[in-house]
Amino acid sequence: VSLFDHPDFDSHEQVMHGFDAATGLRTVIAIHDTRLGPALGGCRMWAYANDAEAETDALRLSRGMTYKNALAGLDLGGGKAVIIGDARTQKTPELLRAFGRHVDRLGGRYITAEDVGMTCADMDIIATQTAHVRGTSANGLGDPSPYTALGVFTGIKAALAHRFGSDDLTARTVCVQGLGHVGMMVARNLHEAGAKLLVADIHTPSVEKAVSEFSATAVAADRAHAAVADVFAPCALGAGLNDATIPELGAPIVAGAANNQLAEARHGTMLRERGVLYAPDYAINAGGAISIALARPGGDDSAARDKTLAIGTTLLDIFQRADALDLSTQEVADQIARERLDGR
Amino acid sequence: VSLFDHPDFDSHEQVMHGFDAATGLRTVIAIHDTRLGPALGGCRMWAYANDAEAETDALRLSRGMTYKNALAGLDLGGGKAVIIGDARTQKTPELLRAFGRHVDRLGGRYITAEDVGMTCADMDIIATQTAHVRGTSANGLGDPSPYTALGVFTGIKAALAHRFGSDDLTARTVCVQGLGHVGMMVARNLHEAGAKLLVADIHTPSVEKAVSEFSATAVAADRAHAAVADVFAPCALGAGLNDATIPELGAPIVAGAANNQLAEARHGTMLRERGVLYAPDYAINAGGAISIALARPGGDDSAARDKTLAIGTTLLDIFQRADALDLSTQEVADQIARERLDGR
Repeated sequence: VSLFDHPDFDSHEQVMHGFDAATGLRTVIAIHDTRLGPALGGCRMWAYANDAEAETDALRLSRGMTYKNALAGLDLGGGKAVIIGDARTQKTPELLRAFGRHVDRLGGRYITAEDVGMTCADMDIIATQTAHVRGTSANGLGDPSPYTALGVFTGIKAALAHRFGSDDLTARTVCVQGLGHVGMMVARNLHEAGAKLLVADIHTPSVEKAVSEFSATAVAADRAHAAVADVFAPCALGAGLNDATIPELGAPIVAGAANNQLAEARHGTMLRERGVLYAPDYAINAGGAISIALARPGGDDSAARDKTLAIGTTLLDIFQRADALDLSTQEVADQIARERLDGR
Repeated sequence: VSLFDHPDFDSHEQVMHGFDAATGLRTVIAIHDTRLGPALGGCRMWAYANDAEAETDALRLSRGMTYKNALAGLDLGGGKAVIIGDARTQKTPELLRAFGRHVDRLGGRYITAEDVGMTCADMDIIATQTAHVRGTSANGLGDPSPYTALGVFTGIKAALAHRFGSDDLTARTVCVQGLGHVGMMVARNLHEAGAKLLVADIHTPSVEKAVSEFSATAVAADRAHAAVADVFAPCALGAGLNDATIPELGAPIVAGAANNQLAEARHGTMLRERGVLYAPDYAINAGGAISIALARPGGDDSAARDKTLAIGTTLLDIFQRADALDLSTQEVADQIARERLDGR
């Protein structure tokens, strides 16, 4: 089957396979939709099991960026790049420069940034070859994680407000699954706002840190979804909301930073039918993308912070519309994004 | 399997899948090698049985243009575009403009031109969207077929000179298989130079025209390769030199305009082992590509004619080197092209 027949092709405007003989670079740059502006989306370097998986990842993530950027109110389209390879052993300055040249050849229709396997220092190297890169040390807000965490924290409060009529965290318990960079910051924010924390991670030192610093209670990583709490905040890998976990959910709200939380679209409906309020992943975790998009020289982050805090308003709008239309929150988020894309 | 794993990927620098929702355009633009210059190669519109065939066609043709342009001594790389669709029923000005925008987005790394299913008028429409197009009515030499035919005629004479020590055609018999645009012109050139002609085509009126105008003798289209002659000139479809036809060849020279004459690379060796002198297809049929590459405003075709006539010299070089190294002429042509690509 060709790329046009790929189940995730979904009307991509342009998909570029780039190769560089000297460095062995193999990259797929997918540009899904540029109606709102140039396609902004990070570059992920990953040792895919096979090259077809890399294509699938690029297509899905690129489409996701279209919806994320549109829903966040950014004048940017959606795109994504993947580099096939192990970032620990195969990432060289030469390879990054070859990638930068491929980005540059797209003439600004695609703007790259950090994603899994890439660092700010890598963006600096890429910036020697193209102006179409964000998140460099010279012209960025640094690590986007604090903005993602701020957006998730804001989103959890919006969900509490919708569900309980108050966003006060002092009497609430939140179960944070995944204490990576973002998850740990979300936990800290919640702790500082007075919430009681349950935490889970397969990496024991992270759990110990949260237990000691945030007075959190550890739960088993594979049972975090079932922990009794007010909010379940998945901040680890995707597809955590599925046929097995949804019936076991221990919280009436799911609001976390993880990407692609729903295993399938129908699981959004399943959550609604079970009375669980779900903050659509790409709405609540848009803070990082917002900080990359709205970075300004000199480190002024007021625009990025304002737009990140507006995630709360967007989520309240989604929750209300989902109730009014009896649709899943994910469906409503997609609908709002599509309305903006179609200029309605 | 992904595009990187495609058996014909062969280190392509860049392969772009382009889509346009408004017109339904699906195009694959393959850029194989730009070390010698921007990638020039025509755009083919074809109702492929499936999209995967379109990818395969783009990859193979693009690589072929790298070798053709390099061997012809042009400062151009190799690329090719395919548009998936029926040129008779699905080609609209809107679709061509959408294609032109995709070409333009490649920033001049790919230059498009006519190929199967496309016309000079189509290039004019494409030129409203991009400067990276050749063969427009305002800035081209018109139909490239006379240049292809001139190159083939020159190549047949070079083969005769190498084989018989004289390029005189007056005592020679040439069997022209395929009397399309180029084949008919080759036949006319040969007739005017005094050659005796055997002709074959599945289209009877073309055969009748050649019989009447060039005093040619008709032979059955599917037996043309076996006709007793000094030169067999395949000017129809590709893959005509294969396990079935090579043992039956009736001429000691094969020199014609068709693309991809060898079913497989090993058939070049088979021809050599049987004592048949084969003019590599992409060397002898480069005249059209040369005329597109070297078109100058005002219709001055002296550069294009000179470069086309140089095909004879290139072929003599190939023939001599093949004898010296005991390699197939196709292998030697590839070798010369690669030497130029590698800057040796």
